[in-house]
Amino acid sequence: MKFKRTERIGAIVKILSDNPNKTYTLSYFTNQFNAAKSTISEDLLVVKNVFEKLQLGKVITISGAAGGVKYIPKTSKAENEELLMELCEKISDKTRILSGGFLYLIDLIYDPTVVSKIGKIFASNIDYTDADYVVTMETKGIPMALMTSKAMNLPLVIIRKDIKVSEGPTLSMTYLSGHSSKVESMSLPRKALKPNSKVIIIDDFMRGGGTIKGMVDLMNEFGAEVIGTGVFISTMKPTEKMVKDYISLIELDVVGDEIIVEPNLKTFRNEYRNENIEEYNIEDILEESDEE
Amino acid sequence: MKFKRTERIGAIVKILSDNPNKTYTLSYFTNQFNAAKSTISEDLLVVKNVFEKLQLGKVITISGAAGGVKYIPKTSKAENEELLMELCEKISDKTRILSGGFLYLIDLIYDPTVVSKIGKIFASNIDYTDADYVVTMETKGIPMALMTSKAMNLPLVIIRKDIKVSEGPTLSMTYLSGHSSKVESMSLPRKALKPNSKVIIIDDFMRGGGTIKGMVDLMNEFGAEVIGTGVFISTMKPTEKMVKDYISLIELDVVGDEIIVEPNLKTFRNEYRNENIEEYNIEDILEESDEE
Repeated sequence: MKFKRTERIGAIVKILSDNPNKTYTLSYFTNQFNAAKSTISEDLLVVKNVFEKLQLGKVITISGAAGGVKYIPKTSKAENEELLMELCEKISDKTRILSGGFLYLIDLIYDPTVVSKIGKIFASNIDYTDADYVVTMETKGIPMALMTSKAMNLPLVIIRKDIKVSEGPTLSMTYLSGHSSKVESMSLPRKALKPNSKVIIIDDFMRGGGTIKGMVDLMNEFGAEVIGTGVFISTMKPTEKMVKDYISLIELDVVGDEIIVEPNLKTFRNEYRNENIEEYNIEDILEESDEE
Repeated sequence: MKFKRTERIGAIVKILSDNPNKTYTLSYFTNQFNAAKSTISEDLLVVKNVFEKLQLGKVITISGAAGGVKYIPKTSKAENEELLMELCEKISDKTRILSGGFLYLIDLIYDPTVVSKIGKIFASNIDYTDADYVVTMETKGIPMALMTSKAMNLPLVIIRKDIKVSEGPTLSMTYLSGHSSKVESMSLPRKALKPNSKVIIIDDFMRGGGTIKGMVDLMNEFGAEVIGTGVFISTMKPTEKMVKDYISLIELDVVGDEIIVEPNLKTFRNEYRNENIEEYNIEDILEESDEE
């Protein structure tokens, strides 16, 4: 099938955008579109411009045997702020307060559009260059952890609260849940992680940090190292958490019937991750006779 | 900011593709790209071609006050078959067999690339025109249900196995799990569904259908109607399931150390859903002077 230049560009954007952090060789595109390498190179320059002008991330070129192009999603500062302000406004709705001081949030944290944006924010602000897995614990964090793993192009690992015999031999341990001060258990099949893995932990909510601390301990039992942690909401109190290195997107406090909620904008860093990947420049600026 | 035609097309593809089933007005694009309506109309013709040539779905134009364009994802027959054959081959690996006749599958059903394709297949083969929610039960079905809800642009609802007081007043009930022949419970916050909703049920695995039957009953307790059901894997035995109207993507049987697994290709229908949406044609064939 023959593609026009505009169609090829649209198609390349679609392919890269649907598969973040997956490397495509030039040959993949020359075969797909029955086009010369030089043609595809020119197309890729335009594609790079699209992502940069829209501030939706970066398309990088990797040299060498395993080379090719890949799309690294990256949210803009303006986009982060807009989403978080919008979410804070929704969260501050007093009808969300449930008896016991809980907040009803599942309409937001199960919303595919919201969690897909949250996933991209985590991928933009946690360095996952060396990571092998995204890890979460059931249940509420799963949607945002999955979207993070999609943006990072990493497999997702879900820690269960009960021991599931249907998943083969599992490693289980107990941990102290900060909120309920109860001893709870978590478990994970032995096969779920390769030895010496590096992982990113994603969860929806952190109060004292007991659950995340438990997840870190479980990872250590697997011989895995936690190299980044992202939580969607952290509470303002207690100020001292049981984990140190984490980013949280929103800070929250509920005092009586008052909800204090604000975006944790200090959490964001503006640089791209993966800065260390060597990029060779396609020097030629594309001379195009496009209208406008 | 000024966009070239090729860049606008790339950008429109990115926006539509990231937000399936969301309607964008022409004005949204004219503002975004500071371009005339006629220009955007021409761009949209090219964009439509991209999706159709790549067989990645359809961009439709909706007339009227709530009009605009939206992208309906649709997998091709070839794409369905390729994914399902690949998954069947992976599933048939005998090292997956666990004691008790269970199969280890979480590496596949938690893989973001796999579940995002499964979600698009469900969205291509279940009519969700009138649906308000995608519903699943924790835990293993959540990733594919989320990706289905993303493709359908519907909120996700997750039924819990325990009663969670932290989600407010819940409606709980018991059901008979076919496999273990045990009475289990499921619960859902009262606020999770609006009255008189129509829902699509998505789950990862169906043996006798007891769990899905329980979910249907729970939906009825909420005054909701199940208008479509998709399961990833159904077992060949028992042949009689407790639910009738469902599609399953893969059929499975484990006999001793033998895994029989095959794509359930009869499940697919080739028509587009949403046939009833009136579409007005942009008659003009775009005269373009693109190279090639």
